[in-house]
Amino acid sequence: MPKTDSNLAPDRDEFDRALRRAYSLHRDNDGGKVADYIPELGKAAADDFGLALATVGGKLYTIGEAEVEFTIQSISKAFMFCLAIEIAGHDFVAKRVGIEPSGDPFNAIVFDDQNRPFNPMVNAGAIAIAGIIYKKLGSDSFDFIMERFSWAAGRQLSLNEKVFKSEEQTGHRNRAIAHLLLAAGSMAVKPERALDLYFRQCSISVTAADLARMGATMANMGKNPVTRKSAFDLSAVRSTLAVMFTCGMYDYAGAWAYDVGVPAKSGVGGGIFGVVNRQLGVASYAPRLDAHGNSVRGVAAFETLADEFGLHAFDCTNIGSSYVSSLIR
Amino acid sequence: MPKTDSNLAPDRDEFDRALRRAYSLHRDNDGGKVADYIPELGKAAADDFGLALATVGGKLYTIGEAEVEFTIQSISKAFMFCLAIEIAGHDFVAKRVGIEPSGDPFNAIVFDDQNRPFNPMVNAGAIAIAGIIYKKLGSDSFDFIMERFSWAAGRQLSLNEKVFKSEEQTGHRNRAIAHLLLAAGSMAVKPERALDLYFRQCSISVTAADLARMGATMANMGKNPVTRKSAFDLSAVRSTLAVMFTCGMYDYAGAWAYDVGVPAKSGVGGGIFGVVNRQLGVASYAPRLDAHGNSVRGVAAFETLADEFGLHAFDCTNIGSSYVSSLIR
Amino acid sequence: MPKTDSNLAPDRDEFDRALRRAYSLHRDNDGGKVADYIPELGKAAADDFGLALATVGGKLYTIGEAEVEFTIQSISKAFMFCLAIEIAGHDFVAKRVGIEPSGDPFNAIVFDDQNRPFNPMVNAGAIAIAGIIYKKLGSDSFDFIMERFSWAAGRQLSLNEKVFKSEEQTGHRNRAIAHLLLAAGSMAVKPERALDLYFRQCSISVTAADLARMGATMANMGKNPVTRKSAFDLSAVRSTLAVMFTCGMYDYAGAWAYDVGVPAKSGVGGGIFGVVNRQLGVASYAPRLDAHGNSVRGVAAFETLADEFGLHAFDCTNIGSSYVSSLIR
Amino acid sequence: MPKTDSNLAPDRDEFDRALRRAYSLHRDNDGGKVADYIPELGKAAADDFGLALATVGGKLYTIGEAEVEFTIQSISKAFMFCLAIEIAGHDFVAKRVGIEPSGDPFNAIVFDDQNRPFNPMVNAGAIAIAGIIYKKLGSDSFDFIMERFSWAAGRQLSLNEKVFKSEEQTGHRNRAIAHLLLAAGSMAVKPERALDLYFRQCSISVTAADLARMGATMANMGKNPVTRKSAFDLSAVRSTLAVMFTCGMYDYAGAWAYDVGVPAKSGVGGGIFGVVNRQLGVASYAPRLDAHGNSVRGVAAFETLADEFGLHAFDCTNIGSSYVSSLIR
Repeated sequence: MPKTDSNLAPDRDEFDRALRRAYSLHRDNDGGKVADYIPELGKAAADDFGLALATVGGKLYTIGEAEVEFTIQSISKAFMFCLAIEIAGHDFVAKRVGIEPSGDPFNAIVFDDQNRPFNPMVNAGAIAIAGIIYKKLGSDSFDFIMERFSWAAGRQLSLNEKVFKSEEQTGHRNRAIAHLLLAAGSMAVKPERALDLYFRQCSISVTAADLARMGATMANMGKNPVTRKSAFDLSAVRSTLAVMFTCGMYDYAGAWAYDVGVPAKSGVGGGIFGVVNRQLGVASYAPRLDAHGNSVRGVAAFETLADEFGLHAFDCTNIGSSYVSSLIR
Repeated sequence: MPKTDSNLAPDRDEFDRALRRAYSLHRDNDGGKVADYIPELGKAAADDFGLALATVGGKLYTIGEAEVEFTIQSISKAFMFCLAIEIAGHDFVAKRVGIEPSGDPFNAIVFDDQNRPFNPMVNAGAIAIAGIIYKKLGSDSFDFIMERFSWAAGRQLSLNEKVFKSEEQTGHRNRAIAHLLLAAGSMAVKPERALDLYFRQCSISVTAADLARMGATMANMGKNPVTRKSAFDLSAVRSTLAVMFTCGMYDYAGAWAYDVGVPAKSGVGGGIFGVVNRQLGVASYAPRLDAHGNSVRGVAAFETLADEFGLHAFDCTNIGSSYVSSLIR
Repeated sequence: MPKTDSNLAPDRDEFDRALRRAYSLHRDNDGGKVADYIPELGKAAADDFGLALATVGGKLYTIGEAEVEFTIQSISKAFMFCLAIEIAGHDFVAKRVGIEPSGDPFNAIVFDDQNRPFNPMVNAGAIAIAGIIYKKLGSDSFDFIMERFSWAAGRQLSLNEKVFKSEEQTGHRNRAIAHLLLAAGSMAVKPERALDLYFRQCSISVTAADLARMGATMANMGKNPVTRKSAFDLSAVRSTLAVMFTCGMYDYAGAWAYDVGVPAKSGVGGGIFGVVNRQLGVASYAPRLDAHGNSVRGVAAFETLADEFGLHAFDCTNIGSSYVSSLIR
Repeated sequence: MPKTDSNLAPDRDEFDRALRRAYSLHRDNDGGKVADYIPELGKAAADDFGLALATVGGKLYTIGEAEVEFTIQSISKAFMFCLAIEIAGHDFVAKRVGIEPSGDPFNAIVFDDQNRPFNPMVNAGAIAIAGIIYKKLGSDSFDFIMERFSWAAGRQLSLNEKVFKSEEQTGHRNRAIAHLLLAAGSMAVKPERALDLYFRQCSISVTAADLARMGATMANMGKNPVTRKSAFDLSAVRSTLAVMFTCGMYDYAGAWAYDVGVPAKSGVGGGIFGVVNRQLGVASYAPRLDAHGNSVRGVAAFETLADEFGLHAFDCTNIGSSYVSSLIR
């Protein structure tokens, strides 16, 4: 049964009905496979399914396991890119990381013709971004990003130490990527520094509700709708949403842009979060992944919700999500 | 000096000022090179520069060489995809052509893991789309697309026979692609049929004003704003805009999504057209191309106009292009 | 039971025993699959197995289905390369076709950094070679190669018309390759001319005995050991053997060089022929192919024979195949 | 002027004349560029040019800077592969490293379809080989290989510490490769162990005379012709020569097999060594490299010497290098 934050209007409305519908439509879909490349991830309850929707007006709607914690994984890449632009500036970032979709899987090791990772959403780009932040903030880096992530979520987040240790021990391919970046001149610091930060950022625990609120913070021009704390820089948000739209869903990005049409980012922990600009943050949690590495139920639920509300960026009949807008205010 | 359609309000307004500004900012940029892979293209006046902006309210604003004819080239791919979905349906099309950005140049011959061209905006995908339309309409195909293109533009368009002959004689790589499609089972008809249609579609003459009106027709849910004729199917328009956004500007698509954020498509004839959903069609003509195959002045002018009006799909402060909207109605 | 040409000494010798051994060791290996990309190939008797060995002294040893006809297919590429060098010269050929192994499958469409096919043993290279021969000999080309192939085999060979028609009708990928070669400037004539010759050369009927004699002709400095007719140019033979050694067995070439160490070429018709310089031609016929496109029993039989006689080019203990040499004279 | 080891017959013979000819033909060729990716390599005297020829009968012929020391670099890969087969066995090695030429440059990071490096002559394969040896011999590994290299050369070789330190500090790409191997399951030990051994093996100082003697040791079934010490295993030598023939000269391997036809290996230090089985070791030293990473004068000198003596493995008129053989005994 859906619930809302206690301090918000409790009446069942359109959003509740939509979440219920998406939830019941897809809860029996048991396609896909829980990620198990690190043992800790394999322990997730495969059948968990949670959905959450947060408005720029500060309301939260959830259903199912929306308060179960899981690791944020690659979803962190979107927030890190946003923070890197704020801290280091567009030009500094652009010299080291591209913004083109590549058609390659997330862990590909190909670089573009300027010898940069294709974009900040593939591992190579994300590790370079971690290097950029470490270059600017040094050993304060992790505290900084944890604070910003927490501001965005509206509560203090924490690190899953077990997952972090696992990532660190098994991340051979990521370690290789970091050395390739060094060889290519795209690694601003010692590879181990960037990798440590990268493994940590991926190991932050969140819930679907957190991700929805983080999305709403982005949708709200970087300000948490409830606390009014500014977690992200306004100008960096637009850039981040653009890259999420073209590169956020691994090599399924084009299909996502086609079917869902909402800037989003997924992680192998089973989460997906999306941003409807100036309106909503939307998030799902369901650990079983498809061949692209995206949550099976999550993708399906986003399709249902996007259809329901006309969220698609290029939907003809709901321009500026005017319908959604009317629900919020 | 900018001008407007004679039957429309002639007062100089915001749009005129913006066009003038973009025009004067970039008219002296003589970077890039006119395409010359076929002799006819090489004859374009390298210094031509025209901009046009058409509203869903039926107004047209232009500046510079906005009435000079050039061949539509790859811009036709966007309209053809839209028509193929209308005629053959999403599923028929999806079996033969993917929708993922590939990171490869427009003339790449790599296929995706389902042995399909990556998307309808690369040559391989566009030739497969031409094959789909020919499969459905046979020898009427070209008349049909010419009629629809003309409805969209609001005037009768014509074929540039010289360019068509040139394309046909020098299109060895495209001919190779057509045979690869046949080998891959993605070519619905004899390769020569699809190629003939493809070479013809690329050789249709348009002006920047035409392209702006064709964009406005798309923005207007497929209906020409002046004639009210329905050139495109409503549901196909959304799909087309999504693919234009992720794949429309060759291997510069990510940067375009980042900097401009408007679904668009460019052609080696020097044209670019963009669509601001439910608001505007925007177009530029300037024959000198950058290394990606995009018009140098065109890209620059779109950046200026997008900034000016907050056209970026993920702009935070102009949600649903509300400012533009206020100018139109 | 092995047999020898009637006009040669009929005594069972070392070669007979070795053939018998290789035959009985591998006749029960029914791994692999008959090629069926064209229906005619699929009709081959899957269980046929023939071996043949011809000496530069003019003797022939055979066992099993060594007189069954099958189409020469890619084995023709080796002879065509040899003839192209004779007719057009090294430089003319080198400008259009490389000589580097590529690690890619036989039907790959990648070209090298000089925009040439990687080598004459992949389809792209072979089609370019056919184009070179056609450029020089025009409509006499097929008669010319048929005569030379026949001289090498010591009997008049013939074309399998059904296979030729099949190849022609289904060769979409090869047709694509020919157009790519044209686009790359590596195609000396109209694509259809080269393709017609290529499809014909692949459709010549041979037996294992023929291939062994053709190999012996190469081993005998280009002269048929029995008829003394010169089928191949001496200097072209060395070049051909070198390319066969590095590129003759598709993407299994390295393993072949490692395990067998004899210049060889295989075809999807089920044949393999090898050349032990100045000593022997060796051939096998067995239609079931492995994943690389090489005859399963053929590869195994060559390994056995190479071991038996120390045929490996870099064998330490049989320098210059001295043991084999002693058997021949 | 050429010279011979003092304890050998001093008469000027065919070999001396051939070396003089090759030397004078190419000494003025100043094409190419000294490798400078590590500063130490850049210090080489660009104009040095030495040639050496050692027979399995124990004679040495040299001309020019044949006693100048330089680092062995990638030439070590051939010897390491030979030793790995001896120590770990064919199967253990084959599971981790392929034997197919790849068409890629030496430092490519692509793996084959079994997730192994393509062959032991590219960096990835060589690092895996170093890992295999370390797996078997642990911290004795370097002493062991130094002993065997020294036995082959017939004198105690030493490590160039400066080059070793440089390699270690700048080998980011090789470090990346080692981590990729670990991720792929092809790295038998901790990456740092394999890398340390790999950087050391590349930093061993040799002269052209050393390399010629090492080649003669291989040609002599693994036994140093003068000391009679067995440096290499007989059965491993054949395998090594086969892989040198198909993969030894980077992405120039096919052209080398075509023009020179002698199993060989080159290094960015400027050396090349070749083996004429059961006859000769041949070596050159000249630091300027071509685009493939091979010594410009070295390649040219080998072509001249191979022509002169009919050394090509598939030469028709000098079967088993019979002419060379007559000069030796």
